[in-house]
Amino acid sequence: MCQNHGVAYIKPGVVEVQSIEYPKLALGDRKCEHGVILQIVSTNICGSDQHMVRGRTTAPAGLVLGHEITGLVIEAGRDVEFIKVGDLVSVPFNIACGRCRNCKVGQTGICLNVNPARPGAAYGYVDMGGWVGGQAEYVMVPYADFNLLKFPDKDQAMAKIRDLTLLSDIFPTGYHGAVTAGVGPGSIVYVAGAGPVGLACAASCHLLGAAVVIVGDMIPERLEQARSFGCETVDLRKDVALSEQIAAIVGVPEVDCAVDCVGFEARGHGSEAGTEHPATVLNAVMTVTRAGGAIGIPGLYVTGDPGAKDDAAKEGSLSIRIGLGWAKSHSFYTGQCPVMKYHRQLMNAILYDKIQIAKAVNVEVITLDKAPQGYQDFDKGAAKKFVIDPHGMIPN
Amino acid sequence: MCQNHGVAYIKPGVVEVQSIEYPKLALGDRKCEHGVILQIVSTNICGSDQHMVRGRTTAPAGLVLGHEITGLVIEAGRDVEFIKVGDLVSVPFNIACGRCRNCKVGQTGICLNVNPARPGAAYGYVDMGGWVGGQAEYVMVPYADFNLLKFPDKDQAMAKIRDLTLLSDIFPTGYHGAVTAGVGPGSIVYVAGAGPVGLACAASCHLLGAAVVIVGDMIPERLEQARSFGCETVDLRKDVALSEQIAAIVGVPEVDCAVDCVGFEARGHGSEAGTEHPATVLNAVMTVTRAGGAIGIPGLYVTGDPGAKDDAAKEGSLSIRIGLGWAKSHSFYTGQCPVMKYHRQLMNAILYDKIQIAKAVNVEVITLDKAPQGYQDFDKGAAKKFVIDPHGMIPN
Amino acid sequence: MCQNHGVAYIKPGVVEVQSIEYPKLALGDRKCEHGVILQIVSTNICGSDQHMVRGRTTAPAGLVLGHEITGLVIEAGRDVEFIKVGDLVSVPFNIACGRCRNCKVGQTGICLNVNPARPGAAYGYVDMGGWVGGQAEYVMVPYADFNLLKFPDKDQAMAKIRDLTLLSDIFPTGYHGAVTAGVGPGSIVYVAGAGPVGLACAASCHLLGAAVVIVGDMIPERLEQARSFGCETVDLRKDVALSEQIAAIVGVPEVDCAVDCVGFEARGHGSEAGTEHPATVLNAVMTVTRAGGAIGIPGLYVTGDPGAKDDAAKEGSLSIRIGLGWAKSHSFYTGQCPVMKYHRQLMNAILYDKIQIAKAVNVEVITLDKAPQGYQDFDKGAAKKFVIDPHGMIPN
Amino acid sequence: MCQNHGVAYIKPGVVEVQSIEYPKLALGDRKCEHGVILQIVSTNICGSDQHMVRGRTTAPAGLVLGHEITGLVIEAGRDVEFIKVGDLVSVPFNIACGRCRNCKVGQTGICLNVNPARPGAAYGYVDMGGWVGGQAEYVMVPYADFNLLKFPDKDQAMAKIRDLTLLSDIFPTGYHGAVTAGVGPGSIVYVAGAGPVGLACAASCHLLGAAVVIVGDMIPERLEQARSFGCETVDLRKDVALSEQIAAIVGVPEVDCAVDCVGFEARGHGSEAGTEHPATVLNAVMTVTRAGGAIGIPGLYVTGDPGAKDDAAKEGSLSIRIGLGWAKSHSFYTGQCPVMKYHRQLMNAILYDKIQIAKAVNVEVITLDKAPQGYQDFDKGAAKKFVIDPHGMIPN
Repeated sequence: MCQNHGVAYIKPGVVEVQSIEYPKLALGDRKCEHGVILQIVSTNICGSDQHMVRGRTTAPAGLVLGHEITGLVIEAGRDVEFIKVGDLVSVPFNIACGRCRNCKVGQTGICLNVNPARPGAAYGYVDMGGWVGGQAEYVMVPYADFNLLKFPDKDQAMAKIRDLTLLSDIFPTGYHGAVTAGVGPGSIVYVAGAGPVGLACAASCHLLGAAVVIVGDMIPERLEQARSFGCETVDLRKDVALSEQIAAIVGVPEVDCAVDCVGFEARGHGSEAGTEHPATVLNAVMTVTRAGGAIGIPGLYVTGDPGAKDDAAKEGSLSIRIGLGWAKSHSFYTGQCPVMKYHRQLMNAILYDKIQIAKAVNVEVITLDKAPQGYQDFDKGAAKKFVIDPHGMIPN
Repeated sequence: MCQNHGVAYIKPGVVEVQSIEYPKLALGDRKCEHGVILQIVSTNICGSDQHMVRGRTTAPAGLVLGHEITGLVIEAGRDVEFIKVGDLVSVPFNIACGRCRNCKVGQTGICLNVNPARPGAAYGYVDMGGWVGGQAEYVMVPYADFNLLKFPDKDQAMAKIRDLTLLSDIFPTGYHGAVTAGVGPGSIVYVAGAGPVGLACAASCHLLGAAVVIVGDMIPERLEQARSFGCETVDLRKDVALSEQIAAIVGVPEVDCAVDCVGFEARGHGSEAGTEHPATVLNAVMTVTRAGGAIGIPGLYVTGDPGAKDDAAKEGSLSIRIGLGWAKSHSFYTGQCPVMKYHRQLMNAILYDKIQIAKAVNVEVITLDKAPQGYQDFDKGAAKKFVIDPHGMIPN
Repeated sequence: MCQNHGVAYIKPGVVEVQSIEYPKLALGDRKCEHGVILQIVSTNICGSDQHMVRGRTTAPAGLVLGHEITGLVIEAGRDVEFIKVGDLVSVPFNIACGRCRNCKVGQTGICLNVNPARPGAAYGYVDMGGWVGGQAEYVMVPYADFNLLKFPDKDQAMAKIRDLTLLSDIFPTGYHGAVTAGVGPGSIVYVAGAGPVGLACAASCHLLGAAVVIVGDMIPERLEQARSFGCETVDLRKDVALSEQIAAIVGVPEVDCAVDCVGFEARGHGSEAGTEHPATVLNAVMTVTRAGGAIGIPGLYVTGDPGAKDDAAKEGSLSIRIGLGWAKSHSFYTGQCPVMKYHRQLMNAILYDKIQIAKAVNVEVITLDKAPQGYQDFDKGAAKKFVIDPHGMIPN
Repeated sequence: MCQNHGVAYIKPGVVEVQSIEYPKLALGDRKCEHGVILQIVSTNICGSDQHMVRGRTTAPAGLVLGHEITGLVIEAGRDVEFIKVGDLVSVPFNIACGRCRNCKVGQTGICLNVNPARPGAAYGYVDMGGWVGGQAEYVMVPYADFNLLKFPDKDQAMAKIRDLTLLSDIFPTGYHGAVTAGVGPGSIVYVAGAGPVGLACAASCHLLGAAVVIVGDMIPERLEQARSFGCETVDLRKDVALSEQIAAIVGVPEVDCAVDCVGFEARGHGSEAGTEHPATVLNAVMTVTRAGGAIGIPGLYVTGDPGAKDDAAKEGSLSIRIGLGWAKSHSFYTGQCPVMKYHRQLMNAILYDKIQIAKAVNVEVITLDKAPQGYQDFDKGAAKKFVIDPHGMIPN
């Protein structure tokens, strides 16, 4: 049990499964008696991992990746009181102490005590506090009583593990985008991006009662995936204005609200396709969102992007049509999703069959040694969400 | 009674008091039996009028200015049921029908029925529906039952008319900035800009219970005015980082939330002073607002700015550090203040002496013929709010 | 076209279809140039009509009933600007001026200008302002621009008229109960009462994403109806505690939140069945709602109930276990549903097939002359919602 | 340092200062390594202590009283990470684990892990989990990192300790009542009760920007106290309807919202004075609150009241005019204040001199041995808030 293997970032474009240290109840010198060791049942590859793997960050070689973790508690620190060895749990990707000003009001995405560099931390991510990632066999989760969501019944949970594994990040993240955009019964929504977060957002919009969910992307397979669960789609490769494509669906060239599930690695639409246009999604959603509408922005925008094409973008400054947003009284909601705010309710939605989220994002389970291949396929735009099964515990 | 005079825009830098048409219950061919004619008791010069007068818009010569209006009802259309001749009323600057989808949910700043060009209208403003302005003796107010706020007691109201005149725009506008930024009891707030909207915002923050209100500007007289009612101030001409100046006041280099009361005509801070930096305020407030904080943006950003220094800014695109905002989970609230949402409560705050808003913004009453001088003084940065008294009705 | 027939209350237990006056654009001496005349396409019998018909109110003989109205505009007052002759519209049961303090904030259920006796009015209801009811061929709707919801496409609307007819009252009313109780994705909800409002509430809970919707009633057919669209049910005739019945369904003896869709005519549960226990539902929902939960109360409680069994209840005072609610930090939301707050979104949910509300409440279309029979059947507890089709316009 | 003395309940009407056990980091067998030992700097006598002392509960003889605690950390358990020995801290009266479902959403008043009997716990209170009270020299506070609010500067805090001591209960409790009632700038509010919670509520209403705060009570000294900081008052001993007394102040017989700061030990108003009428306050506030208004209920209502005059009241059932509330679309907010939701902001309001809360509630500092006298004086209706200074640390 004292061996461990995990997916490590090596250099741009390359990840590798390596033998890594078995986790301790500590982060360097910092004792974590409030933590637990998990045997990982499932751990997903995320689009934001790709930012590192593509070399768009300062991630060091050897960084163990993975922040979407579900597991079985096999050891608990002496100060863990309510989580027990044997519990099957979902781990929010944001690490939170549960004791700071931000955690106390539910803003667990910007915890003040888990990252000396700035508010907010995550497992296996550059500049996010140094916590070891969980695309591995075992991982340590600090502040376990606070962070973990225990599944009420292990057998029931294992039977739905493909869905429940998405509670650690992309389901809440997509949902958060929808909630902050004000999606509710009867809404007509535009979701920019049909990657896993976009698809999770679209499925969340349905769960929230939206009347019409329109998903835009440039990859036909991803659009096809969106249509498979009842979304309308727009193909952004076409040289037809987004507003016109929307009008063709709902009769008017605008939507009630919109969610940017793409972020700063956006590519130009239509005739600008193929080049990076980091503000293109934000500007597009302002164009089609009705006056008074809100815009959720779960898609990542970064403070520094060494690989950007101009100096402003290198420090995260983009050319945004703020004047248009202002004229339309838009509001904008940014930032990491505070997973804990949503995971219990979304777990219920899964357990009571109100949503088929694994199907919506097209989960594919792979073994740990297939992780490098998963990274490559995902990078090419596969309409799939790769879930790593490091111990072969996921039933077929 | 059939004569009328008003302040007209002539050309960049020039306004003039002219004889203008006496108002009808109509806008061109559109009948306005739901409207009333007001004898104007007070009408204020607004910072946003300056955008036109400085030649930063496409306002045509002859446009009658003025959207901050308080008056006495002297004639009512046949469809007016609850407002009566003789009522003393405050006019929200946003014209709203009270019957469209947006008005029904209180978004009167983006009414769908009063401006064929786009949602939202105002009196005396370019591209805002063609409604005649109210820096005049008489004006027509449509949808009077819906739009107007009647003062409960005329004598009491005339005694506080210097304060009540601010209900038509800047008091609610500043307040809206504070509310959307999440200001409440105990908040530590940064208000960018000490013009009348900034000062009204700062006074609103106090009304909302803020613990510390820090106002930033580059004009010493305006900062002095802010200090006169209990604000802390930072002088943006200094070559000391805003965050450091804030730390000197509250011990930490950040605030809970911030309000941008400047908008697109912002000038560079510190060593960049003197040149226009349209995104400088937005970027500065993100720098100093704590993670999780909200940013209210009542300051105007425009969709088109022919006088801007670069092509992007000409169409309202600014270089915004969205990556920084995202990392801090900021939310952003833009757009015209829907005055009706707030004016009744703020009237009560005035009538029951909970705020001295006229004193806070330094109201100076002038006659109609002094309006051109008022425009000039205000443009030079006078720490004053000019209120025109076209009929000599305002008591000393 | 100048003839009209409507359903009139005659005496306890008796209603009659009579020849009634063709509507005018007036209410007595009060001119209603802001009103329209509707040819009624559908008009529903409501549970709250039954309070009058059972003789539990002071309704005078001859009162024309009916407040759930959908129709075609055939005449418009001269001051109607946006609604046009030929429009097919839904009429919110609450009559609202759109110009008073309450209407301006969306509280159209307590409009200050439509009922001299107290805030709030409705068509065809005792003490509700004297507006003529709409279980008739024609009816007058005041403040038409404000009140009416126009269906975007008449043919599409007629094809779904059995669903859309429910927008005038019970769909929004049930939905309001769910919304005020805080129902959202993942909620476990208890809905007290499986009459039409209870069923509409249960269906609304599903639309809002609830994980489990448990409906309680004492009429087996109504429970069967609830089960037909995916609800769990508890039979309140059983002498098993409600909390135990809930535990048998969800594993714990409590729910996240609850909605009282019964009101003051509640009957005792279990061994107390058969006698009226006006507070029994309120007390039961407090027992089973978890600490911190909210309770929506769309079920009617009256200020005066001459037929009540004790003096306190005669004036609307009931013996409520407020101490229990307090210990559990419950919050309680009462009052008429402000239909306008919800009808546009719910229309979209119908038009885009997100809900089968007519099926959920088991709509049965009847002719006008069958209305008296409908009242009798409904009073006996038929698991149906009767929709009157006065002009034979509803397609099979 | 291993001695300790505290105020113990002996029998109805009698409390005594006794030698009590020095605190351990445990509650019986339950280890509390997450806890700290405080040297108590100030600890207040609360109105809810009186319920026990009057014999209205099943409190056992020997129960050590006191749940309003401020102190100095002198020992910290091994699981305490962020609170340090030497910190000066405010203790919320509700004990909360920070790790359960309710704590995670800020509902610390109904924590699920600190009281086996039901959600919610407190120090020194019957049926509230058995935690030892803090009207003593030393006390143990569990889950210290989560529960405690650290004052930023000890000297500054000691200088304002009379105000800061109120953060543990009555200031947030009164504030919570105001917030749940919807008090904001311009509100006209009725506060029922001028005991310490009522006065704290009234002062909070001012902090929140209320235009008019009307306080009702039957003790002239308490009304005088309310007037001392700008409240209007109504004397409920008068045989004049409350609505008339309100009309005499604000011109109309109603208020925007109301707060019940009395609870179940209410006495009859006017001609019913002198006898207990447990629902009289609730019914009175419904009468005077405008349609659409909200009612905050921080005043305690109990699940069992052995001393009540009728059987229904003995189990917490009161005769409430729910029909009136329903007709007016009232909403009702009950329960313990979750102190943590508010204490940081209110601390800022004190530290930055935005409120004089000690003056408003008339704090009187007494020594520990004077506590029994304080209980007696308070029971007689003294317009004072007694603050015990067990170590003589409070400066004059």
